[in-house]
This record gives sequence, C-alpha cells and structure tokens, in this order.
Amino acid sequence: MLAVYLNRELEIRHNYPVPSPPPGEARIRVKIAGICNTDLELRRGYLDFRGVPGHEFVGVVEEAPDHPEWIGKRVVGEINAACGICPTCRAGRPTHCPNRTTLGISGRDGAFAEYLLLPVVNLHEVPPEVPDEAAVFVEPLAAALEIPQQIHIHPTDRVVVLGDGKLGQLVAQVLQLTGCDLLVIGRNRNKLDLLARRGIPTMLVDEAGALSADVVVECTGSPEGFHLARRWVRPRGTLVLKSTYHGTVEANLTMIAVDEVAVIGSRCGPFPPALRLLQQGLVDVLSLIHARYPLREAAQAFDHAARKGVLKVLLDVSP
Amino acid sequence: MLAVYLNRELEIRHNYPVPSPPPGEARIRVKIAGICNTDLELRRGYLDFRGVPGHEFVGVVEEAPDHPEWIGKRVVGEINAACGICPTCRAGRPTHCPNRTTLGISGRDGAFAEYLLLPVVNLHEVPPEVPDEAAVFVEPLAAALEIPQQIHIHPTDRVVVLGDGKLGQLVAQVLQLTGCDLLVIGRNRNKLDLLARRGIPTMLVDEAGALSADVVVECTGSPEGFHLARRWVRPRGTLVLKSTYHGTVEANLTMIAVDEVAVIGSRCGPFPPALRLLQQGLVDVLSLIHARYPLREAAQAFDHAARKGVLKVLLDVSP
Repeated sequence: MLAVYLNRELEIRHNYPVPSPPPGEARIRVKIAGICNTDLELRRGYLDFRGVPGHEFVGVVEEAPDHPEWIGKRVVGEINAACGICPTCRAGRPTHCPNRTTLGISGRDGAFAEYLLLPVVNLHEVPPEVPDEAAVFVEPLAAALEIPQQIHIHPTDRVVVLGDGKLGQLVAQVLQLTGCDLLVIGRNRNKLDLLARRGIPTMLVDEAGALSADVVVECTGSPEGFHLARRWVRPRGTLVLKSTYHGTVEANLTMIAVDEVAVIGSRCGPFPPALRLLQQGLVDVLSLIHARYPLREAAQAFDHAARKGVLKVLLDVSP
Repeated sequence: MLAVYLNRELEIRHNYPVPSPPPGEARIRVKIAGICNTDLELRRGYLDFRGVPGHEFVGVVEEAPDHPEWIGKRVVGEINAACGICPTCRAGRPTHCPNRTTLGISGRDGAFAEYLLLPVVNLHEVPPEVPDEAAVFVEPLAAALEIPQQIHIHPTDRVVVLGDGKLGQLVAQVLQLTGCDLLVIGRNRNKLDLLARRGIPTMLVDEAGALSADVVVECTGSPEGFHLARRWVRPRGTLVLKSTYHGTVEANLTMIAVDEVAVIGSRCGPFPPALRLLQQGLVDVLSLIHARYPLREAAQAFDHAARKGVLKVLLDVSP
C-alpha cells in the first residue's frame, strides 16, 4: 500500500505492507487524514519516532475479525491503544496506560497510509450528517473538550485562550459554548478574525496589557506563552497547559505556590461529545481547512502546514 | 518595647515604638512566637523585608478601639491583612488581596516584638484547652489544612508527602486523618521517627525507588523535591506545591501536559479547623518543639532553627 514513512526524513513508500488486524483490532481504510503540529514536531525529531505518522483520520472499517458488525462503518478512532488490564486501565484511565501505543506517535503506525489498525474499542461511528472533512477534526476537537472534561468552567468565568492556531481555534469555539467571558489572544490577525466572525472577542498579543483571568488556556506551544499565561491568571485561578514544549522551561514555582494557582496538564479528550458538537453544527471546522493534498504529496503538505498563518492541511488518502 | 528588627542583619531594638491600632485593628501583646522557614529566608534576603519579622504567634488583645469586646482575649491571627473592598476581597479571596500586607513578611511589622497590630477580623480566640505552646502552631497547621481545603483527598488515595521538616510534619499529621494510604519521604531518620511513632509509614529518600501516587505534596523547599514529586505522581494525579524556592526551577512542562498532572500551589489556610484539631488532640505539635529562647536572644534562636535536624524553635516574648 501507499504510506508515508518517517525515518528522520519523510519517505513515500509504495509497497508498504498492508497490516493485518490482531484479535480485538480492526483494519480501517483511511479516507482523509489531518496534519497536526505534533506531526510537524515528529518530523523535526520529537520522540524519535520511526514509522507511519498521522493520528487524525476518518476511514471505513474493512476487516475486524472479532467484530464483523463494524465492517463497512465510517469511523474515527481514539489514538491511545491501551492494554486494558494494568492498574491504570482498570482505574479507568486507559489514555494513560503505561503500556499503551499511540497511533502514529508511539509504537504504532498511523493514518498517513492507505490502511491503519486500531482496537475496535477505540472506534466511534461517524453520524451521516458529519462529512469526512469535518470528521477528520474529531481527534483535535476531543482534545479541546478535554478542558471542560477536566475542570469546571463557570459561565461567569473570565477565560483567556492564548494562541490562535489550530488547537486554539477549537478550544475557543468549545469554550465559547459555556457562555463564559472569553478572550482569545494571538499573533495572527487573519486567524483571530476567524474567531471574531463567530463573535469571540480577540486581541493581538502586542496589544494585551494587564489582564486577570479565572482561567487561562495555553495553546501557543512556546515557553513565552507559558510565562504570559502565568502572568495573566489570577490568584487561585487555573492555567490549563495544552501545549507541549521542546525541552524544559524555566518556571517560577514560588509564585505558583504563593498565588495558589492550579496548573492543569491537558491532552487527549473524549470523542462522543466532539461528534455531537459537529453533528449539531455547534462547532465549525471546515473554515480551518487551508489546503488538501493527495497522500503521495505528503512532503509538500507538511511544508505547507509548517508555514506561518496556515491552519489545517488535509491529506486525501482514498475516496 | 523590645523588638527584633531585620535590616539585612537581625537587630535587637530596646526602644522600638509601641504601635497604636488604627480603626478596625487591635494591639496584641505577644506571648510566644515561632520561627518559620520563611523567617530564615527573610534573614537571607528573601523579599528584601525590613521591619519586625515573625508571623506565628499567640497573644492577648490589649487594645481594640472599635471592638472592646476583644480586649483580654487570648488569640491567634491570620497573617494577611486585606483591604476588604477590592474585587479579589469581594470575590471571597482576601488572602490574595493585591493590596494586602502580611504580618512580618510584607508591609507590616510582625510577631518578634512585645506588641503587634492586626485587623480584628483576622483574630481567632484560642479555646482554653489549647496551651500557648500549641496555639503558636495554628498558623502553620492552617497552612497544612489548606491542602484538604483545596483538593479532595479520597480515603483510598495513595498520598506521598515529600519532606520531614516542620511543614511536612504538620501536613503528614493532617493527611493521616483522612484515612489515606500515606507515606512520608524525608532525609532525616529522627524526624521521620516522630511520624513513625504516630503510625505513619516513612522512608528515607535514598531508599525510595519507583513510586506512583495519586497525590504528592512537596514540602522540601528544594528544586530536587519538585523533580522527585513530578516523577512520583501518577498520570492525572495531583502535585501539591507547598514549597517556595529561591529563583526559578527548570521544569518539564511537556510531561505535565502529556500526563495531565495537576500542579496545585498552596499557601495560607483556614484557622478554625486548625484550632479544632488542636483542641480535640488530633494533631500533636508539642513534640515538634526543639528549643525555646527569650526574645532578646532571637539571633541565637534563628541560628538554632537553621541547624540541620532542628524542628520548631520558639521565642518567649511575654508571660
């Protein structure tokens, strides 16, 4: 099959073996896949990943030995494949299973190929109202929904989202639905305008002065974003850390203790509410698509996705 | 009056002016004061404080112009004097008032003197069952109680307290009362034995291998403690930061996001439950007293308190 293979460089492989599902897993024909910032970082060497990257996808189940009822269904899939039997899994935290593999990120080939494997337990059927181009956003939209899954956002809260990129856009749309007093701060007027058109107040970071928010969500991926977020969260407020950073960050932990700030790390989130919001038209993802490339042009697609000002770039894998 | 004055060096002043309470405040004759690690840090230059240090005390109200009903009462006092009218105060977070002064720490003379001033609203009467030597621990015991005030400790939680010093001792005793599966890790066998005698499992840090705790409380005051705490908290677990550190700490924030850890800063806590626990004999503080000095020997007392292996050193101010 055709597959993108990351081996320090992105390689296009034309005869990559079609995978066979082990017990409990399904083979899915990928229709569309999305390029995420994590993919760009993997290409730069993050986690030293070798294999097929890609973890945002929509596809169709073609083979599922133990679960033939899934064959032919259009699905999205949770990316962490857990062991199911360790104490962490049994405690109900499978996305943190220490034995997990993660689609296209760690120990498991991903979605930038004609076929992928995932445990059937990870799959979610996509309702017919949600087109492929929207369904491919379920994974990052679920990551945005992890925030209200972890912390209670009050309708009266002053919430600042730092970052106007792909993740910031989805986080802002999700948090807007709480009725909270929302402000998105970013560096890119065009990206902020996408949110402004939905009625979300925005501000360029250079224009932001003194702020005091109940909740600040850090989505910039830069250590400077962390320091701004720390400065803008009120005492006893919450700083949600969605970003991952290269290396360590110098942090003033004393001020976190003195101000009794809660710093909450946040990663993968729940798929069912993401599908509901798309089905009900409460979140718009189509306007975030900036380009589409066929799978064989993945290298160009990656370059495009890495350009300043670009939001989502999709890969068309199969019809 | 006799007062200890911090002016880079600790000075003993014999004719320091007796303070007069402004409206809303009371003058308290200090009976006993306690030396806290923060006092040792102030002496080393922390916050560049000039004035009378000391914030752990028990005393008797001598003058209270607006509230004569308090005169003669034996009291302890919350250390943050808030403005009462700013948005933070009105939102019910007076200990974070941006206009606050803090007894013996910031903008307000403290307890290492014959008299101090505090707002009457900060005072709590000490029940007769609680002797002076125990009442002087109410402030740090309240800081320990801030942990269950901020987060829900489940009786089934695996909780690790890092640090066997003054604060670690009180935190461990308070958390033991939840019924949780508690382990205190420290560097000092004698200090750990104080806890072991209360039935609390303990371990020397050098003996601690792989651990995975639902909650880790960092009470060491050293950046190494933070890194150990981070390593030992499970994914989606909580790291309570009681320590303040000199300068910034290099932290791997990416792992906080990936493991969805909650880092909760924690500082001053509620006085009424601290008084209840002492009154009901559920926490022992007397065994933490290692030395007592008269106020005029404050410099020697500070030196003693800074010695390795020493827990609480008290200053006897007036009978």
